[in-house]
Amino acid sequence: MKEAFEKIKRGTNEIISIEELKKKLSSGRKLRIKLGVDPTAPDLHLGHTVIINKLKTFQDLGHQIVFLIGDFTARIGDPSGRSETRPIMTEEQIQKNIKTYTDQVFKILDKEKTEVAYNSKWLGELGVNGLLNLAAKSTVAQMLVRDDFEKRYKEDRPISILEFLYPLLQAYDSVALKSDVELGGNDQKFNLLLGRQIQRDYGIKDPQIVITMPLLEGTDGVKKMSKSYNNYIALNDTPKDMFGKIMSISDELMYKYYELLSQDDLSIIKTMHPKEAKLALAVQIVERRHGKEAALKEKEEFNKVFAKKDIPDNIDEYPVDDIRLKLSELLVKSDMAQSKNEARRLIEQGGVKIDSQKVEDDFAVDFAKSFILQAGKRKFKKIIQKSK
Amino acid sequence: MKEAFEKIKRGTNEIISIEELKKKLSSGRKLRIKLGVDPTAPDLHLGHTVIINKLKTFQDLGHQIVFLIGDFTARIGDPSGRSETRPIMTEEQIQKNIKTYTDQVFKILDKEKTEVAYNSKWLGELGVNGLLNLAAKSTVAQMLVRDDFEKRYKEDRPISILEFLYPLLQAYDSVALKSDVELGGNDQKFNLLLGRQIQRDYGIKDPQIVITMPLLEGTDGVKKMSKSYNNYIALNDTPKDMFGKIMSISDELMYKYYELLSQDDLSIIKTMHPKEAKLALAVQIVERRHGKEAALKEKEEFNKVFAKKDIPDNIDEYPVDDIRLKLSELLVKSDMAQSKNEARRLIEQGGVKIDSQKVEDDFAVDFAKSFILQAGKRKFKKIIQKSK
Repeated sequence: MKEAFEKIKRGTNEIISIEELKKKLSSGRKLRIKLGVDPTAPDLHLGHTVIINKLKTFQDLGHQIVFLIGDFTARIGDPSGRSETRPIMTEEQIQKNIKTYTDQVFKILDKEKTEVAYNSKWLGELGVNGLLNLAAKSTVAQMLVRDDFEKRYKEDRPISILEFLYPLLQAYDSVALKSDVELGGNDQKFNLLLGRQIQRDYGIKDPQIVITMPLLEGTDGVKKMSKSYNNYIALNDTPKDMFGKIMSISDELMYKYYELLSQDDLSIIKTMHPKEAKLALAVQIVERRHGKEAALKEKEEFNKVFAKKDIPDNIDEYPVDDIRLKLSELLVKSDMAQSKNEARRLIEQGGVKIDSQKVEDDFAVDFAKSFILQAGKRKFKKIIQKSK
Repeated sequence: MKEAFEKIKRGTNEIISIEELKKKLSSGRKLRIKLGVDPTAPDLHLGHTVIINKLKTFQDLGHQIVFLIGDFTARIGDPSGRSETRPIMTEEQIQKNIKTYTDQVFKILDKEKTEVAYNSKWLGELGVNGLLNLAAKSTVAQMLVRDDFEKRYKEDRPISILEFLYPLLQAYDSVALKSDVELGGNDQKFNLLLGRQIQRDYGIKDPQIVITMPLLEGTDGVKKMSKSYNNYIALNDTPKDMFGKIMSISDELMYKYYELLSQDDLSIIKTMHPKEAKLALAVQIVERRHGKEAALKEKEEFNKVFAKKDIPDNIDEYPVDDIRLKLSELLVKSDMAQSKNEARRLIEQGGVKIDSQKVEDDFAVDFAKSFILQAGKRKFKKIIQKSK
């Protein structure tokens, strides 16, 4: 249990309450872990997968993931507070987005072990009466405590009554699903706690544990990952883009990504060379989405391109007339090594590259075409055939 | 049209807008006049009839009264702000109250010419979707402008989200009913205006005119008439109680009652002796509720009792031995008049009473039993037979 708890706790922002979570974990029951999603933003990015990764932890521990598709509430529009009022979505849009969404999610979660629920099932049947009863469970003052509502109210920006109903409907989903745990971003804390309260109001004695996850910073390392800030890594990005974007982040952010997006032991990761760690992270994330082959191909490609970047623009040419030279002999002749011994040592240490590819042996050089020879970090020569 | 307008305007607090009302009246159309009532307080009092009296004016002018029974919204409870949250009513209670209510209302309005509508008809079918769409039409800030909500919010007293939906449902009734005019007490102004706004939101181009009526003061002349202040005259009061309570009000309040509860010409009423005017008001109101016979009986009874109240507790006895006296002779003998002439004049002027009943002629007195003889306002004698 302790191990399971530690895995769950990793990277979380808040768990309400830890005690109750431990009790539920100790019960041996298969817990029902809810994640609610509005099918409004079908293009998932890594920021979204922070929570999905946490669901994966629960799934690997044998618990029941319940993926709640808010197909009913999606018709209400966006209560985020940033955009004023989004147009209500059509059934067709919703269905399309749900498909796009689940297609992405099941690249990470095991589809067979995941329950997918649609809140239209019970909210459609709730009726006006049921909704009014639900609306009686919360107060205006309670709603205005929510950060975005409070802010908008103080700034005289309109909040429709509809937006007060949205968190209540979301909370009611927890009643219908009998969820044991609900996950969400930090910005969802209010709504998740309301779910906990409403479950109690509807007679559920051990209401859901609320687990909030931090928002993932985007590739800039400053703002939260978001399409609108253009600092995001989409699950639908090509392997190349995905790999390249991950390799572009700072080392500091890389460790945070490890914490939130992988289940690797961070103490081991920290012993690795940062560049190697970053490559491993990129491989892992691309592999999860696009498969191992694609990931390794991108790593190779990246190494090539990355290596090329280290080659200076102006390199002296060295014309060769003897085309039967071994590599160590070429290094000495072209003044890149003082002796054959030094040249061989350099090769053994991996310090010699031909066209950015590390050379393993002191082989007979192929002079069929010209190439760039590199010794150590700073010595470069462009080797060309004299006769050509 | 001008005359009709003046009749409608009488006693109103506010008409929004007068111009639009005049336009509607000029159209020659049969207007639809809505009054919404929650079947929660079945024991109607005169305060309630201020508005019903105004409906009667519309009915007499040939317009269509639509009596809206809020059977659906009654299940929501009380949003008055005085009681925190009333228990939700059962279907049975509602049905019973509706019957009690309409039984009372149709003592005033012509049942045959009145449409009775139940909002359960459309609110039940509205569905969660419809309610959410409706909830999108108003904002939190708009609701918190309503006096009672603002007050409670400022005082940190809870307002349930449900209470924000109530005025919206009431407003939607106006959409469903296509009302041209809605009446209500002053305290309903916010809700009625919301109905006007929501009608526009749902595409009604000439939305309802809002007419608010003042609250009727109770018999104390200070607080509004209310069961909880025990200053009310219930429609279910006995003719005796009703008559007596009306006779107990101040002259000032009596004129206000005339304005709000009758259609009599106030300039004529003001030429009457206040006590006669009050008696006429009491007769009119009791007659409307209990019929002419009952009203006149109460008037007679009241006059007897009221008159008795003017008789002092201790009255000198005057023993008579000559039992063939005429009234004028008795008045002189008993020192209540100086001369027979004065006695006859007093009788002619109506200043002489036997057992509080005015005496018309100078008849031969019946001494079969003792009686109280009154001359003018202050002279009293108890006449008894000497031999008895």
